[in-house]
Amino acid sequence: MRYLITVEYLGKNYSGWQSQKNATGVADVLNEKLSQLFKQKINVDGSGRTDAGVHAIAQTAHFDADPVIPPSRLAMAVNTMLPHDIRVKKAVEVDGKFHARFDATEKTYVYKMYVSRMLSPLRLDTHAQVIPPIDFAKMERATKDLVGRHDFVAFSSTGRSGETTVRTISDASIVMDGDEITFSVTGDGFLYNMVRIIVGTLVFIGKGKIPATAVQDMLKTGDRTLGGKTYAPQGLYLKSVKYD
Amino acid sequence: MRYLITVEYLGKNYSGWQSQKNATGVADVLNEKLSQLFKQKINVDGSGRTDAGVHAIAQTAHFDADPVIPPSRLAMAVNTMLPHDIRVKKAVEVDGKFHARFDATEKTYVYKMYVSRMLSPLRLDTHAQVIPPIDFAKMERATKDLVGRHDFVAFSSTGRSGETTVRTISDASIVMDGDEITFSVTGDGFLYNMVRIIVGTLVFIGKGKIPATAVQDMLKTGDRTLGGKTYAPQGLYLKSVKYD
Repeated sequence: MRYLITVEYLGKNYSGWQSQKNATGVADVLNEKLSQLFKQKINVDGSGRTDAGVHAIAQTAHFDADPVIPPSRLAMAVNTMLPHDIRVKKAVEVDGKFHARFDATEKTYVYKMYVSRMLSPLRLDTHAQVIPPIDFAKMERATKDLVGRHDFVAFSSTGRSGETTVRTISDASIVMDGDEITFSVTGDGFLYNMVRIIVGTLVFIGKGKIPATAVQDMLKTGDRTLGGKTYAPQGLYLKSVKYD
Repeated sequence: MRYLITVEYLGKNYSGWQSQKNATGVADVLNEKLSQLFKQKINVDGSGRTDAGVHAIAQTAHFDADPVIPPSRLAMAVNTMLPHDIRVKKAVEVDGKFHARFDATEKTYVYKMYVSRMLSPLRLDTHAQVIPPIDFAKMERATKDLVGRHDFVAFSSTGRSGETTVRTISDASIVMDGDEITFSVTGDGFLYNMVRIIVGTLVFIGKGKIPATAVQDMLKTGDRTLGGKTYAPQGLYLKSVKYD
């Protein structure tokens, strides 16, 4: 039987979704505990990787297992075994051909920042710091340039690999509330480090380090060097993965 | 010269403001780093203690030192020495008779909760969990009972000690936003564990474990056993301390 699970995790203590040399990935922990629970070797297949320090509000993954645990009871059962920074929120049965990554039609990411000269102890692991001054209106305008079907190769760490780097961003928004800025983006797919490069570019635009047209310029030229730095992982949250 | 500092900290890694057996307090860390910076023995005197796990958005403390560091440069200088979960936000010179605790005229605490059957990995160290169902309207009504000048002995862990347990709560409010509940309370002073007992009592009222009149009953009788449990420390934030 194929199970689809939805997982919340705090990225701080992990090498990301997948394991790295000498570091545990969230998927490793899930595999270990699910294997114990099902008394068989379980291998979860995620909707995509998240980097070290990146969080998930609702990552998805599928796995196959003899149906010894009904989906309705899986979350409760495995959560008693998992560390507190990983929780299975939901489990459902899916078709044997369903794939958490290939069948995903839309993903939404959220990125949280605060604007302060001082590092904020209360937001160390959950937000990225932006040093003032920042022109938020400029960031707002540049956010609009992201929406649409574009070649996002300039917003990728790996560059061209033969696979298409064209993606459709259906929605992108940025809001400021007090000293906090929240950026949200929804699209049919994201390249490696794409959201963190987008955020770094918006911040550099807001700080006047690069032109206000940098997003447009990057989309036109495919030139990564026109953008801002890849922003810190701890501000990034995979918010949702949608399937038809 | 007497300095007044404002400090933000994440409570997670500390025994609270003050040291406990085998555990470091936030004040110990400040004393160590300020002593290094000033090249003299520094002893900070806080506006009050916070328990292990409790956070501060703006704790205050005073200390005396030969004025080798101007107040305007103190925060920047000591912050480079402090761990990331403690930051001095501000430093000013005060009168030699000023006392961070005795001169405080008003304090505001905030308490953050989320209502969910599942522990939330993303809010482990920053919010307390409330298991549903909960009748929020009941919590809202009971919050109003706190305001005014009352004997809060029933909302204290230590009980009567000869010192007065009468306090004036000038403002108390509770709001629900999605699955999150935020309780805020301002008063001229707070007894040991008072805010955490208030919150536990409001939660128990919301869950129907104790009568909706429990706050009134506790204020009338002084009976701690009529209230809810002392709620978890990680939801509590010292938000501000006011001086005339």
